[in-house]
Amino acid sequence: MSANTSKKLEELGKGMVKDIDEGKGPEFESVLRTKSNTIYDEGIGCLRLGEKNETRKFISVAQARTFMQTVAIAAKTKQFLSQNLHTSIRGLFYQLKVSLGENMDEDLFSEQSESNALIEDLEVALKLKREDLNLTTDRKGFVAGPMVIKDRFGGEETTIDCAKQGRSGWSIPSDVDNGMEIEKVKADYVLVVEKDALWQRLNEDQFWKKENCLVITPKGQSTRGTRRLLRKLADQKLPIYCLMDCDAWGWYIYWTIKTGSMNLAYLGRDFSVPEAKFIGVTMSDIEEYEFLQKLTIKAKEVDIKRAEEMLGYPWINRHPEWVKELKMVLKTKKKIEQDALQGQRLTFVGEYIKSKIENKKWLP
Amino acid sequence: MSANTSKKLEELGKGMVKDIDEGKGPEFESVLRTKSNTIYDEGIGCLRLGEKNETRKFISVAQARTFMQTVAIAAKTKQFLSQNLHTSIRGLFYQLKVSLGENMDEDLFSEQSESNALIEDLEVALKLKREDLNLTTDRKGFVAGPMVIKDRFGGEETTIDCAKQGRSGWSIPSDVDNGMEIEKVKADYVLVVEKDALWQRLNEDQFWKKENCLVITPKGQSTRGTRRLLRKLADQKLPIYCLMDCDAWGWYIYWTIKTGSMNLAYLGRDFSVPEAKFIGVTMSDIEEYEFLQKLTIKAKEVDIKRAEEMLGYPWINRHPEWVKELKMVLKTKKKIEQDALQGQRLTFVGEYIKSKIENKKWLP
Repeated sequence: MSANTSKKLEELGKGMVKDIDEGKGPEFESVLRTKSNTIYDEGIGCLRLGEKNETRKFISVAQARTFMQTVAIAAKTKQFLSQNLHTSIRGLFYQLKVSLGENMDEDLFSEQSESNALIEDLEVALKLKREDLNLTTDRKGFVAGPMVIKDRFGGEETTIDCAKQGRSGWSIPSDVDNGMEIEKVKADYVLVVEKDALWQRLNEDQFWKKENCLVITPKGQSTRGTRRLLRKLADQKLPIYCLMDCDAWGWYIYWTIKTGSMNLAYLGRDFSVPEAKFIGVTMSDIEEYEFLQKLTIKAKEVDIKRAEEMLGYPWINRHPEWVKELKMVLKTKKKIEQDALQGQRLTFVGEYIKSKIENKKWLP
Repeated sequence: MSANTSKKLEELGKGMVKDIDEGKGPEFESVLRTKSNTIYDEGIGCLRLGEKNETRKFISVAQARTFMQTVAIAAKTKQFLSQNLHTSIRGLFYQLKVSLGENMDEDLFSEQSESNALIEDLEVALKLKREDLNLTTDRKGFVAGPMVIKDRFGGEETTIDCAKQGRSGWSIPSDVDNGMEIEKVKADYVLVVEKDALWQRLNEDQFWKKENCLVITPKGQSTRGTRRLLRKLADQKLPIYCLMDCDAWGWYIYWTIKTGSMNLAYLGRDFSVPEAKFIGVTMSDIEEYEFLQKLTIKAKEVDIKRAEEMLGYPWINRHPEWVKELKMVLKTKKKIEQDALQGQRLTFVGEYIKSKIENKKWLP
């Protein structure tokens, strides 16, 4: 991957040099990252960018500055690749400050958010991931279960058995592609639970062992690493079942896993799992499980607003099950947390999940 | 530990029954958790509660409700201990809602923050930790290096070698005492770096291998688990060196590790490491390392305010090195991040740390 990425960066540079040699102002093509160029791809089942391109020009008062910044990032990450070293966006930011700072009238990267947008430019233009540029991103999320990982990092190769990580589990890294592979996975399915606390509960019950599954928590919203890992597991034909809170945040976490999100649509299929299924917690559970009735919480304005918004998305309102679910939220103005499943007895969570999967009681 | 904890809970209950049998209203003793009863213990070098006690009475209009809640928590956690199952405070909250909710006029635990304070009551009154009550807390933080952990959890025993965890590291769990021990640690010292990104950088460089140390990141403010682990490592006579941002948040993270914090003073010595040393980043580094001069950031109001506050704490202003450092912040109104150490070259971080430790350039 690394050699391929270096080549792409080199070609970008060579193209610009060619432009200059031919007396033209250097430029490069990228795909427009706007809401109007974000589409839901029915065939794949995820959000992605459309076909509209934009050309970034150096000879342009509006674009000269960002153009130069993008070139600086490309040069710097190419250097990281040849050094075989990784850093964060913050590390890149300081490197650029040192190497470019002193010859400039103003600080080139005054704000980190600026470099972030420029990295997205590069990802889209070169059709690669920032992880391929040796840039690390925030990591979060854990795995327990029958999966063996081969990890080549810092000059060493390590084998990690996710079934032998005790109470801690295996921490999902920032990059699950470069220098890393799933050596073996012998699970029947993948269970994704929103919260680490519930993951710990299921890990203590050895749910993954009894059910021969992988239990994964994104610890809230999924990181890029967690989304990529889930994509790779789905590619191995493992069903992906998700257990989230029944509220605005839980639904958002689910739909980001399934279709991606509007503002990260440029990541496309590589970071989404259209095959994912939502096993709970649902509004209908409140009717089905009596003890849950006294454990509901009043929905907040953000939950109501989010439910209304979701009813407007064509990729959601095409599913009558979700329309029914969301309308129940709007009607009852209630929500419920996944933690409530422990209310009756701590081990009930596992029983609930088993019953949901066995009876195919899930939402698309 | 579990048997001992159950015994303490039982004695609490028996004491109350005895009170009732004798025709007295049941009560229990706790230590006052107020600012006025928080002292800095010069001998140990940490913040702890003083000697002032308070008596909680059942026959009291003001206290009857919380008294009863505390008893309910004691009963419930005793049940968790006998079941040998763990849950989060949120899980406990829902259990209490189910078992107490239906016989009450009002919801007993309407807010989780309420149950949190009651758990602190129990911890202090019974001189134990909430982890001993099978309550899990948020976990965060990673370790890489020559340490082997023995983890008995969910009915299985696992051995974890923190030198063989690849890019992920070993995730520090919520409870590092019960069912878990450090089987072997062959390091010369412990390095604590504030940010996960820098931890990943050092892990890639195999800094822990070259220097024969443990590299730990709390990922920002330390969790209870991380503080306990650091205490246990210090008990094994390992020096603890800390590398934080040179700003309000970095100093706070350091002093919480070293002396504990005001509002968690009840945790006392078990969760603090008075032996800890601060190797950077310091204001004097900016003079010493030329490239850092263009990487400083303007201090925010919160940084200035925090520096002023710290100068007022007797356990800080007794150290002339810290007084000098903080006065430089107030004078220059600048701060600097640990990430800036990568500005010149990515691997400089390790060189910087080695030089600091070799030359004993640290703050107390």
